[in-house]
Amino acid sequence: MSIPKAVTLFEMGPRDGLQNESTLVCADAKVAFIDLLSDTGLRWIEATSFVSPKAIPQLADAADVFTRIRKAPGVRYPVLTPNRKGYERAKAVGADAVAVFTAASEQFTKRNINMTIDESLETFRDVVRAAKADGMWVRGYVSTAFGSPFGDEVTPQMVVDVSVKLMEMGCDSLSIGDTIGVGVPSQVDELVPLLVKKIPLENIAFHFHDTRGTALANVYAALQNGIANFDSSSGGLGGCPYAPGATGNVGTEDVLYLLHTMNIETGIDLAKMRAASRYIAGVLDHALTSKAYQAMEAADLRIVTAI
Amino acid sequence: MSIPKAVTLFEMGPRDGLQNESTLVCADAKVAFIDLLSDTGLRWIEATSFVSPKAIPQLADAADVFTRIRKAPGVRYPVLTPNRKGYERAKAVGADAVAVFTAASEQFTKRNINMTIDESLETFRDVVRAAKADGMWVRGYVSTAFGSPFGDEVTPQMVVDVSVKLMEMGCDSLSIGDTIGVGVPSQVDELVPLLVKKIPLENIAFHFHDTRGTALANVYAALQNGIANFDSSSGGLGGCPYAPGATGNVGTEDVLYLLHTMNIETGIDLAKMRAASRYIAGVLDHALTSKAYQAMEAADLRIVTAI
Repeated sequence: MSIPKAVTLFEMGPRDGLQNESTLVCADAKVAFIDLLSDTGLRWIEATSFVSPKAIPQLADAADVFTRIRKAPGVRYPVLTPNRKGYERAKAVGADAVAVFTAASEQFTKRNINMTIDESLETFRDVVRAAKADGMWVRGYVSTAFGSPFGDEVTPQMVVDVSVKLMEMGCDSLSIGDTIGVGVPSQVDELVPLLVKKIPLENIAFHFHDTRGTALANVYAALQNGIANFDSSSGGLGGCPYAPGATGNVGTEDVLYLLHTMNIETGIDLAKMRAASRYIAGVLDHALTSKAYQAMEAADLRIVTAI
Repeated sequence: MSIPKAVTLFEMGPRDGLQNESTLVCADAKVAFIDLLSDTGLRWIEATSFVSPKAIPQLADAADVFTRIRKAPGVRYPVLTPNRKGYERAKAVGADAVAVFTAASEQFTKRNINMTIDESLETFRDVVRAAKADGMWVRGYVSTAFGSPFGDEVTPQMVVDVSVKLMEMGCDSLSIGDTIGVGVPSQVDELVPLLVKKIPLENIAFHFHDTRGTALANVYAALQNGIANFDSSSGGLGGCPYAPGATGNVGTEDVLYLLHTMNIETGIDLAKMRAASRYIAGVLDHALTSKAYQAMEAADLRIVTAI
């Protein structure tokens, strides 16, 4: 299997990133942030989540934000729709791409959304059916695919089983997530061949978190297995290293640095990406965790290493 | 080439780590730190540098520290000896393993130690000859092997040329360094096969910095090429992400997390390693950059990721 020559990134900053930020960001800033991202060359930007405003106050302005962002030609703006009500809200403001979210870990699903995996799939079946009937593109998230925060075992077969159910339900593509950032390359090497026996390679994206520094190693292992779709977050948004519960989304800049330096095309302008991250960093008023972003921000590359 | 089943780590924290810290650390704390590291299972701990105290005040106490550390059975404590004077100081306090430091980039060598690469090798020839005559183990560092901070090109062949000269001079082993953290796996894949045509695989270590998040990806690529020796730094010491000139040594905890989760043995106890890092973090009074260390320190693994 040779490494892909081109890779597609799915930008997670505005949704997965911001929903994990404690600072409430106003809709104006979200719109400005997404509009900057739309100029980078990204073709997929997850814009928001039509989740219950009570559950996630940060994204209570989903309809407002989605309505006001500039829809750039060639860019798609999927939104998370956790249930039928959220789906109808998303449809009402013109969303044409939606995502549903389940997990490979029973414990995680139970504690996170208070359902079993099968119950969560039943909830989504209705959403996916409606979305397909409405001609939408549908993504299915499989979180905790490399481990659960509650210690219950997650086997590759469990990931495959949920993935197959989501595809059979009508999902167009999948995002397989290392939600707590515990994965290592040997796990990627084990999982991908099992997945691609059942699901076309091009319909699979991986979503790595850099909680333990392994994100780019896992990206590299996935590339070696032919994976050409990855989720990443502007500036590493959503993972603050000094806060408990840091989730550590891999930074889009880190993934871009790796890919571009390895001569793998993304169509994304790293400098414009950095500008978008810098904007949202100013709004949040804290440093971003992406190492490549930090390296670019360090104005002087002073040499203090040797002798 | 199959991935090695066991890996040897060279701990860089007390030397490469501390010399990049702006807080002056007292000798007592250095001794306590190294003594904690000696209990982790590490077999190689670079203890200090017998560099000019004027050049690096942080390590002016080299003789005192080296004399006072507990020399644990089975652990070796190499020291950096940049010139003959430093070598004699090291020898006087009983060092039996030394290291010399040059680079693959002419510009870096020129600006860092005000010599050409060949001039630096001439300086070291004398040190290496004396060390071998005294029965010592000698390591040669080849820094900036993946890129120079001054923009001059560094080719794999330039790395091989310096490496071969160091080995011919009498070095027992090499550490090939990505001093500014710009390397990616494709560069590792290109370099290692060229190196091993000239130098036995087991005599080569890699020294990665995580400045742009690529360190563990590079470790993984090196493992795939059979490399079984890596440098790393307790807690990621020496790389503060919010300071200009951050060097970003890969954290020993990050490397251990990757290796152990992939069932690769190191003989090192991760919990003891974390304790050593926590000790020095308290002395320095700033957060450490190792992501695995941070993840362990986060007391609660709160789940704020999903829906």
